[in-house]
Amino acid sequence: MTKKVMILPGDGIGSEIVEQAMAVLEVAAEKYKLALSLQQGLIGGASLDAHGEPLTDDTLRAAGDCDAVLLGAVGGPQWDTLEREIRPEKGLLKIRSGLGLYANLRPAILYPQLAEASSLKPEVVAGLDILIVRELTGGIYFGEPRGIRTLENGERQGFNTYVYSESEIERIARSAFEAAQKRNGKLCSVDKANVLEVTVLWREVLDRLAPEYPDVELTHMYVDNAAMQLVRAPKQFDVIVTGNMFGDILSDAAAMLTGSIGMLPSASLNENGFGLYEPCHGSAPDIAGQGIANPLATILSAAMMLRYSLNMGEAADAIEAAVSKVLEQGLRTADIYTDGCRKVSTKEMGAAVVAAL
Amino acid sequence: MTKKVMILPGDGIGSEIVEQAMAVLEVAAEKYKLALSLQQGLIGGASLDAHGEPLTDDTLRAAGDCDAVLLGAVGGPQWDTLEREIRPEKGLLKIRSGLGLYANLRPAILYPQLAEASSLKPEVVAGLDILIVRELTGGIYFGEPRGIRTLENGERQGFNTYVYSESEIERIARSAFEAAQKRNGKLCSVDKANVLEVTVLWREVLDRLAPEYPDVELTHMYVDNAAMQLVRAPKQFDVIVTGNMFGDILSDAAAMLTGSIGMLPSASLNENGFGLYEPCHGSAPDIAGQGIANPLATILSAAMMLRYSLNMGEAADAIEAAVSKVLEQGLRTADIYTDGCRKVSTKEMGAAVVAAL
Ligand SMILES: CC(C)[C@H](C(=O)O)[C@@H](O)C(=O)O
Ligand SMILES: CC(C)[C@H](C(=O)O)[C@@H](O)C(=O)O
Repeated sequence: MTKKVMILPGDGIGSEIVEQAMAVLEVAAEKYKLALSLQQGLIGGASLDAHGEPLTDDTLRAAGDCDAVLLGAVGGPQWDTLEREIRPEKGLLKIRSGLGLYANLRPAILYPQLAEASSLKPEVVAGLDILIVRELTGGIYFGEPRGIRTLENGERQGFNTYVYSESEIERIARSAFEAAQKRNGKLCSVDKANVLEVTVLWREVLDRLAPEYPDVELTHMYVDNAAMQLVRAPKQFDVIVTGNMFGDILSDAAAMLTGSIGMLPSASLNENGFGLYEPCHGSAPDIAGQGIANPLATILSAAMMLRYSLNMGEAADAIEAAVSKVLEQGLRTADIYTDGCRKVSTKEMGAAVVAAL
Repeated sequence: MTKKVMILPGDGIGSEIVEQAMAVLEVAAEKYKLALSLQQGLIGGASLDAHGEPLTDDTLRAAGDCDAVLLGAVGGPQWDTLEREIRPEKGLLKIRSGLGLYANLRPAILYPQLAEASSLKPEVVAGLDILIVRELTGGIYFGEPRGIRTLENGERQGFNTYVYSESEIERIARSAFEAAQKRNGKLCSVDKANVLEVTVLWREVLDRLAPEYPDVELTHMYVDNAAMQLVRAPKQFDVIVTGNMFGDILSDAAAMLTGSIGMLPSASLNENGFGLYEPCHGSAPDIAGQGIANPLATILSAAMMLRYSLNMGEAADAIEAAVSKVLEQGLRTADIYTDGCRKVSTKEMGAAVVAAL
């Protein structure tokens, strides 16, 4: 049966990196006899320019009709002055929420070949392999009421609502417990239960579910301490689960611990394993069009897609092995370049992965 | 005129570290002919045990009648099972809010003598000196409505409100602009204006005030990026200003960059320069009573108090110089100990600072 994939290149370096991931996908499909049909759509600034909105309902529907979505990146300075409601980022929020992609998996892995790229001491990060499970369709990102109002005294007040229901917490918690079962059996839930009631409920739900996963050791940590511990001793973590806002902050910090955010893929899944896959990094408008962006995070996102949404684990393994091999060969895009390696372009890097496949 | 200081040792290592800071204050007062009168009160678990609440109105009033407050730390596992309303942390929130201490100044400074303690590479953190200005009496910490309610379908929902008015933003922004003027003239305001309306207003107010401080260069950064940049290249920052929640997270991350959180003081000020001074670290119940805690953050907090609230800059300078001197001499408490130094107790460290004075 043919699997349909919606490709949304987005903005900035998006189209360059996605092009390489598509090439890799096509070769993998041929080699492993996978019937893949790739179609393309617009999101972010690209959609704004064409349709006046960052994601059309048509594209959302078409994406939902596919088996998975591969996304590049969205945003750029030319759209920064627009009203918030029609900014490129809204397209991202709309597809996450519209397709119910509540489970965002963000691995932070340090490739041994790239150990030097980290700003942390080698002994602190060598072998780092943590997974951040971030709730992606609730919390303060989507909570109502929200807005800016004028008070009686004439001054304005901005407000947002941080809100989670038990069922929302339960489903992301189950994703995290299950992820921990497949890894090293350690789950750290991050909250601010000493101050915020919404996270008191969060903690309660986690504790209630824990007995159902006796093979997982559940701990709790306040978000301020988690930010510290990620800097101090990140290897103490296996899986971290947290809400949308804290997850945004901690997953970026964790990604940066590796020093090579250009290498990190991510998956955003719904209840049925349908998923959107995208690199952790952004659209990097400063280097867009120069052909020097690192396509590996997008290629690794494509591998995650094959594994989690398309049930093609073998092809996923092969792509990941091919990526390791090109790193082994000393090929590096500019963002991960160090002395003694060979600096390559986006295209050369993509071609090298294809060749290694 | 005699200046009155309220000393609130709190819990855990609080009394041990505060004892040393008091000894240093007394010697400084004698040497610089300062009329200081120190009185003590209870906060946190200590107050809970004595009065059933983490801060009594009497103590709050007495603290407000002084010229400044020096605090140790609050909290410990024996109170963790209590209801949130009467947990030790509530004492801290009550004194911050009750005395209007909206401007929390948290320096993250790497002492050259302690460069090795950082988990980051020396070249990334050498000479690090940043100041985080955190709004402390508003935002989601105090926003209403808040709580846990039961929905019509029977499931519970937790909620908190992230709220700031223009005047709240303006006063913390002014503190930050003024701090930047006294430092290197760079102010980075951290928000999540691409998602949260409350921080759209935050950004607007900062931009509106900027022309009044032409000697300060104002930039804006999203909180997820700020967390990354703190890990990647923290020396790009001079002063960071942000709301209560983001400030909680980023100031702890920044403190940990130094690897020696036992060295970092903080000040929380109101409109009139009245302030509460406390170390950045917590009550460390695991080492309480062993006489090994590092008293230097509290001693440096006392120095900040002399400078900012008691107008005794000369004595403050002398205390800070004395702290540098004992580090120079190779004295280290356990938390900052490295090979080749001399490991000392809390008391020995305090005595060494007194001697250096
Ligand atoms: C672009 C922005 C809305 C988005 C978020 O905050 O979720 C991004 O930072 C991310 O983490 O994917
Ligand atoms: C103890 C807690 C309530 C407090 C806070 O979150 O403000 C602490 O983490 C701090 O940063 O001073």
